[in-house]
Amino acid sequence: MSKTISVGIVGYGNLGRGVESAIRQNPDMELEAIFTRRNPEAIEAGTPMVSISDIEQYKGKIDVMILCGGSAKDLPEQGPALAKHFHTVDSFDTHALIPEYFNKVDDAAQTNGNVSVISTGWDPGLFSLNRLLAEAVLPEGKEYTFWGKGVSQGHSDAIRRVEGVSNGIQYTIPHDAAVERVRSGSNPQLTTREKHLRECFVVLQEGADAEAVANEIKNMPNYFADYETVVHFVSDEVLRAEHSTMPHGGNVIRSGQTGPNNGSTQLIEFSLKLDSNPEFTASVLVAYARAAYRMAQAGQTGAKTVFDVPYGLLSPKSPEQLRKELL
Amino acid sequence: MSKTISVGIVGYGNLGRGVESAIRQNPDMELEAIFTRRNPEAIEAGTPMVSISDIEQYKGKIDVMILCGGSAKDLPEQGPALAKHFHTVDSFDTHALIPEYFNKVDDAAQTNGNVSVISTGWDPGLFSLNRLLAEAVLPEGKEYTFWGKGVSQGHSDAIRRVEGVSNGIQYTIPHDAAVERVRSGSNPQLTTREKHLRECFVVLQEGADAEAVANEIKNMPNYFADYETVVHFVSDEVLRAEHSTMPHGGNVIRSGQTGPNNGSTQLIEFSLKLDSNPEFTASVLVAYARAAYRMAQAGQTGAKTVFDVPYGLLSPKSPEQLRKELL
Repeated sequence: MSKTISVGIVGYGNLGRGVESAIRQNPDMELEAIFTRRNPEAIEAGTPMVSISDIEQYKGKIDVMILCGGSAKDLPEQGPALAKHFHTVDSFDTHALIPEYFNKVDDAAQTNGNVSVISTGWDPGLFSLNRLLAEAVLPEGKEYTFWGKGVSQGHSDAIRRVEGVSNGIQYTIPHDAAVERVRSGSNPQLTTREKHLRECFVVLQEGADAEAVANEIKNMPNYFADYETVVHFVSDEVLRAEHSTMPHGGNVIRSGQTGPNNGSTQLIEFSLKLDSNPEFTASVLVAYARAAYRMAQAGQTGAKTVFDVPYGLLSPKSPEQLRKELL
Repeated sequence: MSKTISVGIVGYGNLGRGVESAIRQNPDMELEAIFTRRNPEAIEAGTPMVSISDIEQYKGKIDVMILCGGSAKDLPEQGPALAKHFHTVDSFDTHALIPEYFNKVDDAAQTNGNVSVISTGWDPGLFSLNRLLAEAVLPEGKEYTFWGKGVSQGHSDAIRRVEGVSNGIQYTIPHDAAVERVRSGSNPQLTTREKHLRECFVVLQEGADAEAVANEIKNMPNYFADYETVVHFVSDEVLRAEHSTMPHGGNVIRSGQTGPNNGSTQLIEFSLKLDSNPEFTASVLVAYARAAYRMAQAGQTGAKTVFDVPYGLLSPKSPEQLRKELL
């Protein structure tokens, strides 16, 4: 094996802690330091904690920085800034802003001879790859993405803003019947309501009117009005005990027609069932950190997406070993 | 869009006909000629049929040759021979011989500045990609491949060699219970017998002893003895009417653990449900033909596998369009 890949983590929330665990599962990588905006001395971890303002001192010591900040505020600034000094990997997931983000990171990385793999994770990321693959293989077909069962952060936040709500969480759940219709190969037209159910667990403030809260949630435009929405009221204890993990998952399904007169129906499905959304995203980030390092070693520069990275670069195994063992 | 990619098909069996159909679904490709060992004038097709002995006359006229011969006899010879003159794509699927085949094709392709993508299709091919991906993302886990429901050519041939059998076909069928145990994330140890069922439809020769035939099939070492095998006797008419299509499919499933103390179970599944095995394989070959052409345009040479090809090269869309629409 070649030299150990030295990795830094930027941001120590759920995702950063997931990356820390994932690196332990990959013997060809070593975690050098974790960079935080908080006071590093106040955080307990098994790894050196460093103030993010000192990050440039690690130039030449860290092969790849894994950016674990959020897409709303952290990455738009950190992505381009850190691509000037390091090879980077991130999970920027604001779909509509990806082209603009790509260009900014690409400028910074190209100018400084670095490689930055942006928008990895599972959606964007592995789901995107499977959309592309299925569309390329079955050009005459239709693609469906189902998400869940999993927590939607945006919808949970929306619940918490309702008057009378002290806490709450929302699960997006695909309707089994819709998934089965798609798997049958019939290429159904599915409405928003037919595809996903929204299930809410809500803790009321003292004296709040449950019926009024439920109505306000169910009729909230954009977030809930177009869906079948179920609201359960629970105590704060139950919410903490039963709804504090972060499961997620989903399915990318494409069915298409091939052959003379398009007579054969072919179905491609990729699915994930995740106990922990942030830990899985972290595991994907770590595999793409390996690829970023290798692309840089091969002399490549600039921003890349999962579409630009051959799968062979994700594995610690050599090309010969991959052909022998996995092809 | 850049220039149309000019394609040739070598071998006009089920796979070659599938490629012919698939090219019609891809407006950036054009089928130039079909090469056959048979008398080209005796074959009806909507495309020029050419004797394979004249194939070198097409140097410079055809961008990529899609090799549709069999892995047992055709490809070991044609793969290296044609890689000298053309960019090629094939579906060489004798797993154990892939490393040797890769080296021979690589020699021929490198020496002559061509690109040859070998062993595409779905297994080897898309299944291999998903094995690699899942192993790279979840290094601490276990992988399962299920095949079927689908016809196994090797097992069907074995049935037909039994004395008293005039015709027959064998379906490999995954046991639902085994698939569900794997999906539960419990990483079960599964025996051969627990994973797949073998179902045979057999036409007897006149006067043959049905019980003796069934026993001989069920106890055939390597092919059937380790499995639960079901034998149905049918008439030749029923066999032709009900068992002449070539469905197939399967699932690659990996479940692994992540997080502190490996406390979270994560499941990645890729599955195919195919009405027509050869047409689907053909559709994959065509997408990889596009990639081979682009890799050659980018100055690459030599043998490649699916592990070396970024997904972005499979799609007719530009990188900008892919980032905008599919990421």
